[in-house]
Amino acid sequence: MDGKQTGKIPPMGWNSYDYYDTTVDEKAIRANAEYMAANLKEYGWEYIVVDIQWYAKNPGSRREEHQYIPFAEVEMDEYSRLLPDADRFPSAAGGKGFGPLADYLHSLGLKFGIHIMRGIPRIAAHRHDAILECLVTADEVAIANSICYWNPDMYGVKNTPEGQMYYDSLFRLYAEWGVDYIKCDDICRYDQPSAKAEIAMISKAIRRCGRDMVLSLSPGPAKPEEAWYYEKHANMWRITDDFWDDWRLLKDMFKRCEVWQEHVSPGNYPDCDMLPLGRLGKGFGHERNTRFTYEEQKTMMTLWCLFGSPLMLGAEMTLLDEDTLALLTNREILAMLHTDNVPRQIYREEDRAAWKAVNIRTEDCYVALFHLGDEEELQVEVELDELGVPEESNATELWSGETCEVRQTLEAKLPAHGCAVYLIKNNTGKS
Amino acid sequence: MDGKQTGKIPPMGWNSYDYYDTTVDEKAIRANAEYMAANLKEYGWEYIVVDIQWYAKNPGSRREEHQYIPFAEVEMDEYSRLLPDADRFPSAAGGKGFGPLADYLHSLGLKFGIHIMRGIPRIAAHRHDAILECLVTADEVAIANSICYWNPDMYGVKNTPEGQMYYDSLFRLYAEWGVDYIKCDDICRYDQPSAKAEIAMISKAIRRCGRDMVLSLSPGPAKPEEAWYYEKHANMWRITDDFWDDWRLLKDMFKRCEVWQEHVSPGNYPDCDMLPLGRLGKGFGHERNTRFTYEEQKTMMTLWCLFGSPLMLGAEMTLLDEDTLALLTNREILAMLHTDNVPRQIYREEDRAAWKAVNIRTEDCYVALFHLGDEEELQVEVELDELGVPEESNATELWSGETCEVRQTLEAKLPAHGCAVYLIKNNTGKS
Amino acid sequence: MDGKQTGKIPPMGWNSYDYYDTTVDEKAIRANAEYMAANLKEYGWEYIVVDIQWYAKNPGSRREEHQYIPFAEVEMDEYSRLLPDADRFPSAAGGKGFGPLADYLHSLGLKFGIHIMRGIPRIAAHRHDAILECLVTADEVAIANSICYWNPDMYGVKNTPEGQMYYDSLFRLYAEWGVDYIKCDDICRYDQPSAKAEIAMISKAIRRCGRDMVLSLSPGPAKPEEAWYYEKHANMWRITDDFWDDWRLLKDMFKRCEVWQEHVSPGNYPDCDMLPLGRLGKGFGHERNTRFTYEEQKTMMTLWCLFGSPLMLGAEMTLLDEDTLALLTNREILAMLHTDNVPRQIYREEDRAAWKAVNIRTEDCYVALFHLGDEEELQVEVELDELGVPEESNATELWSGETCEVRQTLEAKLPAHGCAVYLIKNNTGKS
Amino acid sequence: MDGKQTGKIPPMGWNSYDYYDTTVDEKAIRANAEYMAANLKEYGWEYIVVDIQWYAKNPGSRREEHQYIPFAEVEMDEYSRLLPDADRFPSAAGGKGFGPLADYLHSLGLKFGIHIMRGIPRIAAHRHDAILECLVTADEVAIANSICYWNPDMYGVKNTPEGQMYYDSLFRLYAEWGVDYIKCDDICRYDQPSAKAEIAMISKAIRRCGRDMVLSLSPGPAKPEEAWYYEKHANMWRITDDFWDDWRLLKDMFKRCEVWQEHVSPGNYPDCDMLPLGRLGKGFGHERNTRFTYEEQKTMMTLWCLFGSPLMLGAEMTLLDEDTLALLTNREILAMLHTDNVPRQIYREEDRAAWKAVNIRTEDCYVALFHLGDEEELQVEVELDELGVPEESNATELWSGETCEVRQTLEAKLPAHGCAVYLIKNNTGKS
Repeated sequence: MDGKQTGKIPPMGWNSYDYYDTTVDEKAIRANAEYMAANLKEYGWEYIVVDIQWYAKNPGSRREEHQYIPFAEVEMDEYSRLLPDADRFPSAAGGKGFGPLADYLHSLGLKFGIHIMRGIPRIAAHRHDAILECLVTADEVAIANSICYWNPDMYGVKNTPEGQMYYDSLFRLYAEWGVDYIKCDDICRYDQPSAKAEIAMISKAIRRCGRDMVLSLSPGPAKPEEAWYYEKHANMWRITDDFWDDWRLLKDMFKRCEVWQEHVSPGNYPDCDMLPLGRLGKGFGHERNTRFTYEEQKTMMTLWCLFGSPLMLGAEMTLLDEDTLALLTNREILAMLHTDNVPRQIYREEDRAAWKAVNIRTEDCYVALFHLGDEEELQVEVELDELGVPEESNATELWSGETCEVRQTLEAKLPAHGCAVYLIKNNTGKS
Repeated sequence: MDGKQTGKIPPMGWNSYDYYDTTVDEKAIRANAEYMAANLKEYGWEYIVVDIQWYAKNPGSRREEHQYIPFAEVEMDEYSRLLPDADRFPSAAGGKGFGPLADYLHSLGLKFGIHIMRGIPRIAAHRHDAILECLVTADEVAIANSICYWNPDMYGVKNTPEGQMYYDSLFRLYAEWGVDYIKCDDICRYDQPSAKAEIAMISKAIRRCGRDMVLSLSPGPAKPEEAWYYEKHANMWRITDDFWDDWRLLKDMFKRCEVWQEHVSPGNYPDCDMLPLGRLGKGFGHERNTRFTYEEQKTMMTLWCLFGSPLMLGAEMTLLDEDTLALLTNREILAMLHTDNVPRQIYREEDRAAWKAVNIRTEDCYVALFHLGDEEELQVEVELDELGVPEESNATELWSGETCEVRQTLEAKLPAHGCAVYLIKNNTGKS
Repeated sequence: MDGKQTGKIPPMGWNSYDYYDTTVDEKAIRANAEYMAANLKEYGWEYIVVDIQWYAKNPGSRREEHQYIPFAEVEMDEYSRLLPDADRFPSAAGGKGFGPLADYLHSLGLKFGIHIMRGIPRIAAHRHDAILECLVTADEVAIANSICYWNPDMYGVKNTPEGQMYYDSLFRLYAEWGVDYIKCDDICRYDQPSAKAEIAMISKAIRRCGRDMVLSLSPGPAKPEEAWYYEKHANMWRITDDFWDDWRLLKDMFKRCEVWQEHVSPGNYPDCDMLPLGRLGKGFGHERNTRFTYEEQKTMMTLWCLFGSPLMLGAEMTLLDEDTLALLTNREILAMLHTDNVPRQIYREEDRAAWKAVNIRTEDCYVALFHLGDEEELQVEVELDELGVPEESNATELWSGETCEVRQTLEAKLPAHGCAVYLIKNNTGKS
Repeated sequence: MDGKQTGKIPPMGWNSYDYYDTTVDEKAIRANAEYMAANLKEYGWEYIVVDIQWYAKNPGSRREEHQYIPFAEVEMDEYSRLLPDADRFPSAAGGKGFGPLADYLHSLGLKFGIHIMRGIPRIAAHRHDAILECLVTADEVAIANSICYWNPDMYGVKNTPEGQMYYDSLFRLYAEWGVDYIKCDDICRYDQPSAKAEIAMISKAIRRCGRDMVLSLSPGPAKPEEAWYYEKHANMWRITDDFWDDWRLLKDMFKRCEVWQEHVSPGNYPDCDMLPLGRLGKGFGHERNTRFTYEEQKTMMTLWCLFGSPLMLGAEMTLLDEDTLALLTNREILAMLHTDNVPRQIYREEDRAAWKAVNIRTEDCYVALFHLGDEEELQVEVELDELGVPEESNATELWSGETCEVRQTLEAKLPAHGCAVYLIKNNTGKS
């Protein structure tokens, strides 16, 4: 992707979905942003992302029946472009869109992201609405059989000059607002034939819009044989369907990371999805603390950071407890999250796994051992010659801070679903 | 299916699709009906079926791009029910629908059929239009992710009391018009989850409407494991996707008939689709005579009749030539088309096949031999003991009228893609 | 299938597998046969079937590792035909095969069946052993890539005159022994390309062997689109993989019977597999009483009998308890098991189902109501107009013997996994 | 893969299959080796690979029926290890195996490769043959249901210590012989469950055998989601099923290279399969010159070299014509074949494609334009800004040697199935 983001640290931020579902509003966004600026920014957390249906009227009002109310009213401009619902986002009133909110976030030193659905609103196609600076109307760029299965709002857009004009008009608007990050949904696993072309159209629209934006693709699972295509056009792509606080999903992520381990590079981040930590689920009608045990939380943070996944927090930040905050601000763990640390799985069995990440400059080596089974305690080990480090090495376990001398085999007794992660420094003088 | 049609002869008629595509009009319907009444009715042909998009404005006007123009205008009443386009069907003006046309056909001694798409018009759902005698509006019965892949007009209907009310309102209207036959499309091969339930809803609506109607399901291929379900709810179901004048499709039909041979019974007719004979393709922009050779045409007629498929002629009847007319009016061949004649494949190989149909009352036996290969001539044979007839029998070949004595083996030299079909009368006195 | 069995009652008998796995011996067969003759024969039970690996040496001796020991020694004659292991079947010594045992069973008024694997022994192919009266050796009829996934003994046989000669030689031997029933395994679900042709070869070999034999095909699930083929060549075909005493499998059988309901006819019996009742599992190292509750056992017997499945008992009969014996000798329930009673599912939902079977001669109607859910009690009902019986009828519940008057709706409160089955006699004088 | 080959140029050599099928002998191997040493070695060609069934007696003697004669005699030592058929490889007589032949090739400055089938000979398992230094016999390490579909010789090997001992014994023998390259077949696309584990077992056996060997996996197509696994254990893996001289297969390779473009790195070579050039097909009974046109041959060489595939010539070298020799000795084209040149597809459409490869040290840029359609001539182009080179650059077309100045767009008129490939040198002084 020419002109695409090529940072060496994957995006770190917060996303409204896990707590608010479709119901987030401006007040909540501001409160979370303020919390992040005060407490997390210094550790690298910087994106605030407004997730799905910010354009919908009364979203969530029929939640028992519908996550997304079909055929419902949406806020839209005269050019078939969705706008924030001004009832929920008062600063958007008068056609100002997300501009004022983005400005406020920027003033806090943060970056602003929004979720969009691939496509053009169905209602615009049925009403033959206009497209900015385009001679044809929405019905001429919409694809009548390209829909999203789980959301009723949009039709896919044709890969034609007029279709590109529609996407260009969207991103021109987002650039005007000051958007830094786009999470585009219904586009990553190619349920619909047009989705693949739409990735390239959106990528081109971003290059043309005159503003840097991270492009994040959802939902997953992405297709391994299309890795080259995601890398060409996007920055992040989900390697999983929605991830929640369920051990089976976390255990399953080890298999997904195995498949994608060779595709992490500057600007390219296979995405393990949001971190369902802390307080979750209010908009879904199931407000709760995360169901992950603390061992599972450490396992998740260790895998995401060593593998190099983007980190997007799902918790309502204003309700964060101390333990969760500690997890999110552990500088030793977060330090793994850099593309100089090249992640590789050493082995994966039903009940255990080991990963390493060797720093290409310093040759420091991170090693993580995981107990994936349900036994109360399990010894997990790895031979040092698999790591390429000397047979006698010193290792520091990063969660505990303890140091040990290792001969030939690094081993740890781990609790169920738990992990240990070690840093073995290279002593040969490279840096 | 309680109350469903249980005739012993499958429906025989004419369908507008193969010649007119979406563009048929009242004048054409009347002309074809008059031809049928004058020339074919006495042989059993009686249905006249108006195929797809009789409700569309200017259908076919953008034929290079679209068979079905998306998001285009349709004729619809205030209760979300599609009506005939009065520009094409003048007698429908003033809200009279197909009533006057049905009356005319009935006056000719014919029966009247229409094509419908499963579902409710998309535009009605987006506009929140009313449903007859129902408290909720169209958006409440439409399923936003149940669409047809190849036609943009409808959303599937929910399996709820309100959804049933919509279908009931449709069939009440069709009964008022005098419809005798419904070809319901996008419902047979279950591309969409709601389609299976919609078959039962439509079946119930027909029982409730107070008028006998044949229910024909499209497109195929139907699913063999659902045979019991089609038989419970419908009269005909397509065992193939659209059938055209292409030898590969005709050869393939032998495999399909093999699978479905046990599911032909009074009122239940696995459907081999229209007969693409005579003059075809005008509405598709490829007007032509059928591409089938005369041998292939006889092979098709023989298979359809012996197997017991409905016969729906695709030709523009006013342009019928003598040879085709002779094919359609051969009383010996048409006589096979009765459920007393139980069809069974004897064998099928790459280049040849044999079928029999034994009459359960008379024990007369039909035998058909087919050359399915491309060799100029091939001998095809069947042992008499496979037929359950005496080792010395007399047989009459029905297309030629020739009679022969057979000892042990019935054999024929057949031209490429050709057939012979014999009647071996039972001489034991049963009748 | 010309010359195939066309009885109106599906085969009823006993099979050694559920209790003995591969380890059954002559003593056990005789003991069970004697029990059947004394206690069950008068109710219609008559087949005694010796299941898998009667030809194997020391079967079961490495049961932890292998159900079937690969590359192990087998008893075989000079013509590549497997023989009973004389260590386990002493009467087979001296090349007498199963003849003496069959004679004994016949002397008890019973019938004798054996299990075979499709194909020719692998070792015969590798050793180039002879085939009876055939010029070529075993390697020339074996198909090197047609194997069974779960049993290591055989290669598939080529569909050639020499392959047919091998099967003919097998069935000539079985006819000499006096075999009445063949359960042929690895042949029904077509895991391997040659299996379909082998069905026809075996069918032909049976016709040629001069002795009537029931042909039973395993394992399932059979393919609905091949129903016509099974009916042409066999008498029974499994519609399920191995069935055991697990409620999920029993519940699942309702779906399978739904699919196959139209394929029960004289001589043709879709097969729900053995009845895992009474004492089970010794050869598997898990001897136990059936895990089915008594309600589940009644549900199973009701479904199998109403649907018309063959009944093959899995219990060790010499250990039968009174309750199980009562289940197996209930004449009212067993009376449903006749092809004059045509089975049809009325409906099936997640938690309940209803079936009927109408007698084509008497028009008596059986109705079964099933509670398929886990709720302690559930009311299940059916409208009389679905049954075609008068709106006021008398019904007798067959398990309890209780009689009731029914108006419009037949309903019953049923315990979890339980059933009720009624007989509604036709009073119009038909018989 | 620890200790695995990490050369920066993929293996280049010759393979006996395309010309000899199963029938190659020592004389042919020596003649081809001598030709290579004299004519091709200086251009980098160095491997001579003996392909399938060098252990078989009379291979090809029943070629009409069988490519691989089932249950036929093979040359094998007392430890279940296949040996070269001494009738065809006389120097192998007396148990010397391929040692003398390997020595001769080494004396010519060449390297020696052999093809093996995954697994242990079936006959060894059925005979319970010994395994070197192992307490158990062949039947204990063979997997009775792990076979190759298209070759009847072997059973898969269990992933147990004893199974590993068998593979270790094989590679110890190959090391003694002096084998440099192993093409292991029936192992890459995982038709059978054991194949994945066998890759790791073979990889381990190579590390243990004390001799460097290239490990090449066949047949394809390999699985993109297993890329990491092939890279860990092997050097080459086929991304296609057998490739032959058919334009459809060559066109299809563009899609395959697209998928695998990111997986070429030192020691890791996705493999486009042999080059079917020159004289081919004698062993198959269809001796011929390649069916590829000269344009297609250049297209193939260009794609294989730019992409970085191994180059394995299929032609009988002693019959090489001048034109083919020129193709194989074009130093400018062969220079692309180095992992410093990182290949990337620029675009691929139905009728055209463009690729680049940028040298990571010099930043020189190769660009290839391909006409994949059937039109006599087509203009194909690429924008210079896609290449990252200056808007005004000089380019040399490598097949013609012609130089041109390029402004913004590099374009060429190409014949059907033809290509042009340019080198654009970096002028900024890097080297």
